[in-house]
Amino acid sequence: MKNFQNNIMSPSRYDQLKKEALKANLQLPILGLVLYTFGNVSAADRDAGVFAIKPSGVPYSELTEEKMVIVDFNGQVIEGDLRPSSDTKTHAVLYKHWENIRGICHTHSTYATSWAQAQMDIPIFGTTHADHTAGDVPCAPPMNDEMIQGDYEYETGFQIINCLKEKSMDYQNLEMVLVGNHAPFTWGDSAEKAVYNSAVLENIAHLAWLTSMINPEAPRLKESLVQKHYQRKHGKDSYYGQ
Amino acid sequence: MKNFQNNIMSPSRYDQLKKEALKANLQLPILGLVLYTFGNVSAADRDAGVFAIKPSGVPYSELTEEKMVIVDFNGQVIEGDLRPSSDTKTHAVLYKHWENIRGICHTHSTYATSWAQAQMDIPIFGTTHADHTAGDVPCAPPMNDEMIQGDYEYETGFQIINCLKEKSMDYQNLEMVLVGNHAPFTWGDSAEKAVYNSAVLENIAHLAWLTSMINPEAPRLKESLVQKHYQRKHGKDSYYGQ
Amino acid sequence: MKNFQNNIMSPSRYDQLKKEALKANLQLPILGLVLYTFGNVSAADRDAGVFAIKPSGVPYSELTEEKMVIVDFNGQVIEGDLRPSSDTKTHAVLYKHWENIRGICHTHSTYATSWAQAQMDIPIFGTTHADHTAGDVPCAPPMNDEMIQGDYEYETGFQIINCLKEKSMDYQNLEMVLVGNHAPFTWGDSAEKAVYNSAVLENIAHLAWLTSMINPEAPRLKESLVQKHYQRKHGKDSYYGQ
Amino acid sequence: MKNFQNNIMSPSRYDQLKKEALKANLQLPILGLVLYTFGNVSAADRDAGVFAIKPSGVPYSELTEEKMVIVDFNGQVIEGDLRPSSDTKTHAVLYKHWENIRGICHTHSTYATSWAQAQMDIPIFGTTHADHTAGDVPCAPPMNDEMIQGDYEYETGFQIINCLKEKSMDYQNLEMVLVGNHAPFTWGDSAEKAVYNSAVLENIAHLAWLTSMINPEAPRLKESLVQKHYQRKHGKDSYYGQ
Repeated sequence: MKNFQNNIMSPSRYDQLKKEALKANLQLPILGLVLYTFGNVSAADRDAGVFAIKPSGVPYSELTEEKMVIVDFNGQVIEGDLRPSSDTKTHAVLYKHWENIRGICHTHSTYATSWAQAQMDIPIFGTTHADHTAGDVPCAPPMNDEMIQGDYEYETGFQIINCLKEKSMDYQNLEMVLVGNHAPFTWGDSAEKAVYNSAVLENIAHLAWLTSMINPEAPRLKESLVQKHYQRKHGKDSYYGQ
Repeated sequence: MKNFQNNIMSPSRYDQLKKEALKANLQLPILGLVLYTFGNVSAADRDAGVFAIKPSGVPYSELTEEKMVIVDFNGQVIEGDLRPSSDTKTHAVLYKHWENIRGICHTHSTYATSWAQAQMDIPIFGTTHADHTAGDVPCAPPMNDEMIQGDYEYETGFQIINCLKEKSMDYQNLEMVLVGNHAPFTWGDSAEKAVYNSAVLENIAHLAWLTSMINPEAPRLKESLVQKHYQRKHGKDSYYGQ
Repeated sequence: MKNFQNNIMSPSRYDQLKKEALKANLQLPILGLVLYTFGNVSAADRDAGVFAIKPSGVPYSELTEEKMVIVDFNGQVIEGDLRPSSDTKTHAVLYKHWENIRGICHTHSTYATSWAQAQMDIPIFGTTHADHTAGDVPCAPPMNDEMIQGDYEYETGFQIINCLKEKSMDYQNLEMVLVGNHAPFTWGDSAEKAVYNSAVLENIAHLAWLTSMINPEAPRLKESLVQKHYQRKHGKDSYYGQ
Repeated sequence: MKNFQNNIMSPSRYDQLKKEALKANLQLPILGLVLYTFGNVSAADRDAGVFAIKPSGVPYSELTEEKMVIVDFNGQVIEGDLRPSSDTKTHAVLYKHWENIRGICHTHSTYATSWAQAQMDIPIFGTTHADHTAGDVPCAPPMNDEMIQGDYEYETGFQIINCLKEKSMDYQNLEMVLVGNHAPFTWGDSAEKAVYNSAVLENIAHLAWLTSMINPEAPRLKESLVQKHYQRKHGKDSYYGQ
């Protein structure tokens, strides 16, 4: 009897995490960030050392809590009947190396993806951008052919980590990046925050494109304004929100 | 008993104002002018010397009349449990110095914000623009570092006032401005009119961008057409509307 | 008794026309062609020598059949409690001079208005355009100051008529025009067709802008394709539709 | 009695095919790929040697299963009261020559049509593109005047087939093409897949335009990434989806 109960109970261990991942994934079509299945969100439980992620190629309208896949930080499936997102190893690498993140979001949103395809950083032109991060959003360069032909999605994780390292940026201050030729990845302390960052990044990318079309000589935001707006929303003296 | 009744009654003094502010704020997502909480509207009662404004960082879907914050024209909170919008002091300065306005709206709407980031005035290219104001929509330059590091939102109010002064414009004829690197502010004789002006400004900004993309040599509207259209909707001989 | 009946009956004379005008006006926000009240449609009864038009400045959500205004081809109000659209005289002039049209539509739709502001004809780049008209969509030049300061809306009608005359175009083959610095006007054998033409014009204007952005050297459609597509939908050998 | 039953039964032979064609056609307005009736989808039954296609000029809101027209691979109507799409012969030619396709979709979607009007191939700039095809999306050149004045829609089919031949591309690896000056055609192993390809093509066309606006010198995706992404979704070692 107890065994039977355990069997019934065992899936419940990750129910909350699957629920969180489902809810965050369902935000993507509502926010206009995905076409068909071109995106995925994961939610991590750091104590358990696992994350729940969207199954590969399943339409958002057919997603359920039960279809979420539980994967560990080495990319091994722990629970679930479906194959996890093809980008799962990228998520695993980021969770393993960045110990304070609890959510990752990947989309092919229109404006952010176009900057990634153009292989250009998104310049910090205004306060909307500075409210969220204190510098350009970097675009990681394409990998070399060996890495591409090797463990591609695993290497994509390191491509992101190395991009931040080279720019001396902390993943806790910069929660978004473009993978050159591919598309954006964002993260945060929850799956919900990672999705929020994807929507903000798409907005920033749209504004930056229009700004550079209106005025190709538009200067970057000056440092005093960058710091004012970033500190208004972050850090010990922030005074935005409740 | 009377005291108790007074307690119950006291919030009602500003109920109408809060209702007006709530209704105007809820128009922003409907009109597509905001992402998440990137915008705020206030409604002023000039006799009482106060305005009702959106609380900071609260999603539009969770806004209620009760959550609106009552603030005086010096920026002091008079009533409300929540922290008011981080842009509250900008609103206060404008109400204090412009005695005929009863509503202010601030958004990060896409096209208007991009002109602000480009640090360029929006040229008056057509009659849609002239129906609402008789000249370019000015872009106030960034503040100096001292002002930014000082009382930033308070100084933003003066930046707007000084921008109109320098261009010899009357806030009753020009109800919209861009704050360089930041985003637009609009106003009017009601919160509803301020929101209307934000939607119109976004439309004007979109048309002006497309116009200059189609024809980089597009001339400004000639003065006779500017005056014809502005006077059709404003002034003693107007004949638009009922 | 008879008089009373007559009184009750008299409005019914134009009921059908008002209904047609209302229905056509309500299509404008659905098709995304208007912001607030920036547009108007009329429906004409040529035998009665009148047209029904939107009242000035009334939001689409508040429009009713009863609020439509009946006007004759000289621009005189025949029936209705509200002031007709400020563009009424332009409609009247077109109905008076073009004896086979039964509907006119005026909007400030985004792409068509931007071409008008740029004071440029819309080049015929593809078959979507040729399906509807066999040449560029012309942009009428701005009027001289005397005409603007005179009977402006009346002169706008002649500006449109003269634009087609100068280009030797027949209003029955070209049912759309841009008024320079202002916005588009379209027409047809019904109010519904006039609205259809406004939606098609906005689409053509969008495609033409994108085409010239992708390839500034894009050639116009060659004459054999223009004729093939235009004749497919129009004229005695047309084979499109039922 | 038997004859009567046969009469009643005979339409049922193609009921499933009509249902598939109806469902696919109704996706076009939902996906934002058509204005009015500017598009059509067909679904083929290769064993029966016929396809079901949208009737010409009928609004999507009025489409029913019964209105679908059954046509053979020579373009002859087999069943149906309405005239089939004016593009029917183009569909027939493709079905006749490409024996593994079961669905064709034609739209005038905004971005893809603009590339067609610009007479330019869509460059492969990113992985969103490579996930679906391993090279540029080609733009077939305009036909010569004799072909245009002859059996135009029939020749359009050959224009598409020849375009792929000249680029040595297999219709099973490249399921989308632009017809110069006109608009896109897509296909696949079902009508649903053909519609999917039209939505993906519009997305790719949008991204490619933005990419070239952001960086006119943007390089094409390198071959190792093209192969990685194309093989991830296609071929024997694919690991995308379930």
